[in-house]
Amino acid sequence: MNELARRVKEASIKLAGAGGELKNKALAEIAEALMKRKEQIIEANREDLIRSEKENLPAPLLKRLKFDEARIADVVDGIKSLMGLPEPVGKTLLATELDEGLELYRVTCPIGVIGVIFESRPDALVQISTLCLKSGNGVLLKGGSEARQTNRILAEIIIRAAEEAGIPPNWAALLETRSDVSEMLKMDQYIDLVIPRGSNDFVRYIMDNSRIPVMGHADGICHCYVEEDADIPMAVKIAVDSKTQYVAVCNATETLLVNEKAAPKFLPELKKALDTKQVEIIGCSKTREVIPSSPASEEDWKTEYLDYKLSVKVVSGVDEAIDHINKYGSGHTDSIVTASREKAARFMEYVDSGNVFWNCSTRFSDGFRYGFGAEVGVSTGKLHARGPVGLEGLLIYKYKLIGSGQVVEDYASRSRTFRHKKLDSDFPL
Amino acid sequence: MNELARRVKEASIKLAGAGGELKNKALAEIAEALMKRKEQIIEANREDLIRSEKENLPAPLLKRLKFDEARIADVVDGIKSLMGLPEPVGKTLLATELDEGLELYRVTCPIGVIGVIFESRPDALVQISTLCLKSGNGVLLKGGSEARQTNRILAEIIIRAAEEAGIPPNWAALLETRSDVSEMLKMDQYIDLVIPRGSNDFVRYIMDNSRIPVMGHADGICHCYVEEDADIPMAVKIAVDSKTQYVAVCNATETLLVNEKAAPKFLPELKKALDTKQVEIIGCSKTREVIPSSPASEEDWKTEYLDYKLSVKVVSGVDEAIDHINKYGSGHTDSIVTASREKAARFMEYVDSGNVFWNCSTRFSDGFRYGFGAEVGVSTGKLHARGPVGLEGLLIYKYKLIGSGQVVEDYASRSRTFRHKKLDSDFPL
Repeated sequence: MNELARRVKEASIKLAGAGGELKNKALAEIAEALMKRKEQIIEANREDLIRSEKENLPAPLLKRLKFDEARIADVVDGIKSLMGLPEPVGKTLLATELDEGLELYRVTCPIGVIGVIFESRPDALVQISTLCLKSGNGVLLKGGSEARQTNRILAEIIIRAAEEAGIPPNWAALLETRSDVSEMLKMDQYIDLVIPRGSNDFVRYIMDNSRIPVMGHADGICHCYVEEDADIPMAVKIAVDSKTQYVAVCNATETLLVNEKAAPKFLPELKKALDTKQVEIIGCSKTREVIPSSPASEEDWKTEYLDYKLSVKVVSGVDEAIDHINKYGSGHTDSIVTASREKAARFMEYVDSGNVFWNCSTRFSDGFRYGFGAEVGVSTGKLHARGPVGLEGLLIYKYKLIGSGQVVEDYASRSRTFRHKKLDSDFPL
Repeated sequence: MNELARRVKEASIKLAGAGGELKNKALAEIAEALMKRKEQIIEANREDLIRSEKENLPAPLLKRLKFDEARIADVVDGIKSLMGLPEPVGKTLLATELDEGLELYRVTCPIGVIGVIFESRPDALVQISTLCLKSGNGVLLKGGSEARQTNRILAEIIIRAAEEAGIPPNWAALLETRSDVSEMLKMDQYIDLVIPRGSNDFVRYIMDNSRIPVMGHADGICHCYVEEDADIPMAVKIAVDSKTQYVAVCNATETLLVNEKAAPKFLPELKKALDTKQVEIIGCSKTREVIPSSPASEEDWKTEYLDYKLSVKVVSGVDEAIDHINKYGSGHTDSIVTASREKAARFMEYVDSGNVFWNCSTRFSDGFRYGFGAEVGVSTGKLHARGPVGLEGLLIYKYKLIGSGQVVEDYASRSRTFRHKKLDSDFPL
C-alpha cells in the first residue's frame, strides 16, 4: 500500500506537466473503451446486484448500485462534456512586475494526489477519476464494497485506456479493503487531499484519523424562509420543490421557517400542497396554532430527515431566521422567499452557508446545474472550495518568479526598490 | 473559553457584513491609538525583556521580542498600507445566467473565525489582527508567553480602538495559557481555521490534535540549482544571497545542487565567496573532489540548518535536481540558475513547491516583496492558499443565486433547460 501510494505520487508529478491535448485524448479513449466493453461492465454489475440482494441490501441502495446501458451512456456523456471544458492547468491568475526584469506569476497547477472514498454508485468512480485526470491529479479510489466487481472493471478500463493514450502509468489506483483506507489516512507524505463522500459521522471519523487535509462533503440541513411579503403561490411552489423534488439528497430542505405575519395565510396553503405529496409536518407550537402537525422538539431543528418530513417554525422576522439557520444549519444551502430586495440582501449577507438563494429552490445547488460540468461533491467546509466542487476545486497554484540575477540584499540595503506593477501577460514559459 | 469562542463566532457573522469604510476607519483608529499609547507599550515590553533575560532567553529571541519606538512605527506603517489595499470582501468572482431570471454569483466573504498561534514577535499580533479585521474575520490570538505583557496591552489597544470605531464587540480575543490552546483545538463548531506559526513539529502536533483545518506555516528546506550553462558570477551571487542574506528564516537556501559539468568551475568560486561570510560547506563525495568540505550524510539533505551552513550536492542534470528537490524539499521555495529557457520551464513545471524561481534568490518569497502588503505567513500546504498568504488567503466565497420562483422539477422534467451564459455583472444586491 505504501509502495502503491508512492508510485501514484511519482506519476502525479509527471501528470502535472501533461498538456490539455493529451489529457483530452485520454478522456476520449476512456469514453470509447467504456462503450466498447459495456457488456463486461453490465455483467460485473449483475454479480454485484445478485450478491447484494442476497445480503439484503435495501432497495434504494440496490437502485443506486445498478449500472446499466443507460447509466454507461450518461457517464460517457459526462466525459464528453468534461473534454469540452477549458484546460484548467497553467492558467495565469496574477502577474506582477516586482522590479525591472523580475516578474512574478501565480499559475494554476494540480494539487497532487487525491484520495477519494465514495459510496455505492459506480458512476462516482468514473466521474471522480476523469475529473482528477482532467485536472492533472493522481487519484486513489475507494468505492463501496457492494460495487466491488463493477468498480474493479471500471477502474481497469479507465486506467488502461488512459495509459494507452500516453498518460504516465500509475496515475490512478483502486483500493479494495477497509484496511487500505486506514493505511491511506496515514500517508500524508504521498496524499495531498482526502475527499470522503458519506455521512457527517463518516467525514468526522476521517478528520479525526488523518493529518491529511479533508474536503468535507457532509450532510445538508437546508432551510427555506418565507418572509411576510412573499408571494404565497411562489413560496408554496419553492417549498414543495425544495422538500419533495428528491428527498434523499443533501440539498433537499429539512426546515421551513415562516414570518409570523405570513404564517396564517401561508401555512394552510403549504399544508394543502404537501398533503398531496404525503409529507409529514413537524411544527413548533405557533405552527400548530395554524395547522395540525406533530410537535417539533429541539432535536428536529438539527435533523436531516432525507425523507417526506418537514419541520416548520414560525419566526418573528428575517433576523430570527438568520440566527436559526446559523445555529442549526449545516452551512449547505438556504433560500429566502421575499419581495424585498433589502431583506434578500440581508439574508444572503448574513446566512453563513456556501449557497444562499433568493426566490428559488434549494435543490439548485449542484455542480451540473451551476454549469461546472461534473462535480466531486458539495463542500460544506469553508477552506479552499465551498459549495459544488468541480475542476477548480482540484487545483491550487504556484508562484513562478523570473529574474535576471536579482538578490534580496539590494532591496534590504535600499539600493533598489520594488515597483509592484500589475502586468496583463500570461506566464511566458 | 467555550463562551469566549462562541462570542467571537457571533461577532464574526456581524463583522462579515461590515463595509470597507468602517473597517478602514477602525484601522485608522488602531494606528492612532498605538501611537498615542506607545510609552505604555514600550514599558510593558521592558517588563517582558527583563523577565525573559532573567529566564535566560537566547539573545536572538530577545532581539525578536524587543518592541521599541521604531517597531511601533513599522507596524503603524503596515496598518496604513493595509488601509490602502482594495476592499477584499464582496468581490464577484463568477457570474452565470443559469436561465432567464435565474442568476448565479460567486462572491468573496470572510472565512469566519481564525485561531492564530504565533511566536515571540509582538509585531505578529498587530499584523495578524489587522489582517483579520480587514478581511472581516473574527480572531483568537495566542502569542508566545515571553511577550505576555506586550501582547496584553497591544490586544487591549487594538480591540478597544476597533470597537470604538463601530466594529462589533468581541471580534477578537487574546488567549494567554497553553491550556487555552488545547481547548481551542477542540472547538470546531466555532473556529474555522487554525494558523500555527512555528516549527514543523509544532504544526504537526496541531494537525494531529484538531479536526479544525490547519493552514501550515512549516519549515523551509529551500534549494538553489546551478545548471551547466549558468552564468557563474550570477550563480555565485544568487547562492550567497539565498544562503546568507538572513540565515534564520524559512526562505533561506539550505542545499545547493550543481550540474556535474558546472561543478569544477563553479564550486571553487562559490567557496571563495562563502568563505568571506564564514559559511560551512557540507558536501557530497563529488563536491569534495573539487573543494574541501565536511562530508554530507543522508540526514543533511533533510535538514533545515537556519545557520551559516550549506549542504552541496553534484547532480547529473536538471531531472536529478528536480527529483532531489521533490524528495527532500519541503515544498517552500526553489530556484534554478540557467541560461536555458527550456530548462527553466522544466524546473518550474515539475518542482512541486509553492514558489519556483528562475535566476533570482530564494529570499524573494515573501508577502511584502510579492506586493501583498502584509502576510500571515508562508503556506507549504497545497490546499486553499500556497506561498505567502495575505488578505486573499483569509477569504472564501459563497454562491448567491437570485431567482424569480424557479424550481428544479421544471428542469428535471425537461420543460425548461439551463443556458449557462457567462455574465459580466457584479452581484447586484
